[in-house]
Amino acid sequence: RVLRRHLRFPPFPWNTRAVDDLLRCGICFDYFSIAMMIPQCSHNYCSLCIRKFLSYKTQCPTCCVAVSESDLKNNRTLDELVKSFNSARKQLFQLVLDTPLISSPL
Amino acid sequence: RVLRRHLRFPPFPWNTRAVDDLLRCGICFDYFSIAMMIPQCSHNYCSLCIRKFLSYKTQCPTCCVAVSESDLKNNRTLDELVKSFNSARKQLFQLVLDTPLISSPL
Ligand SMILES: [Zn+2]
Ligand SMILES: [Zn+2]
Ligand SMILES: [Zn+2]
Ligand SMILES: [Zn+2]
Repeated sequence: RVLRRHLRFPPFPWNTRAVDDLLRCGICFDYFSIAMMIPQCSHNYCSLCIRKFLSYKTQCPTCCVAVSESDLKNNRTLDELVKSFNSARKQLFQLVLDTPLISSPL
Repeated sequence: RVLRRHLRFPPFPWNTRAVDDLLRCGICFDYFSIAMMIPQCSHNYCSLCIRKFLSYKTQCPTCCVAVSESDLKNNRTLDELVKSFNSARKQLFQLVLDTPLISSPL
């Protein structure tokens, strides 16, 4: 595999890192899987992650607002964003790999 | 300004189009401005757009589920995603402009 040290642009993922961070669950740090929003504070977690957490402590793991399981609301747009972002990310990564080396001896 | 017809990769915005679509309000078609979620159906709109709509008809403009203004919940992650996505988008666009033409006569 060719090292691509000579690419003129900064290494992937540039500013997409901030988007990536926003699409990750604060409990498992993976991308949201069935994102649930806590309406009181607008924080989101995977459905399984937050249900497990609430069975142990009835508060938001990030901001500590009081929460019960029945407060949780599906945030489906986040699930769709995870899918679309990952597909865009793969395409962008391929673009970086396909871009010729600027200072290549060819 | 140079025409960049010879870029090897497909024109911007590739698959980021799907992400872009998900970050737009179905009423004004612009990016969300203070995104509000309807918890009954998980649809999102700008705060002003959906409040104006509900004063006229008390249902979701997309799926027609019954909604009152007090049901609306701030979906802050979408506002943050709009900001981060736009900043990443500008950077990616710059990358396309900065990439040398593959079939340039130089
Ligand atoms: Zn999780
Ligand atoms: Zn919280
Ligand atoms: Zn709007
Ligand atoms: Zn709806």
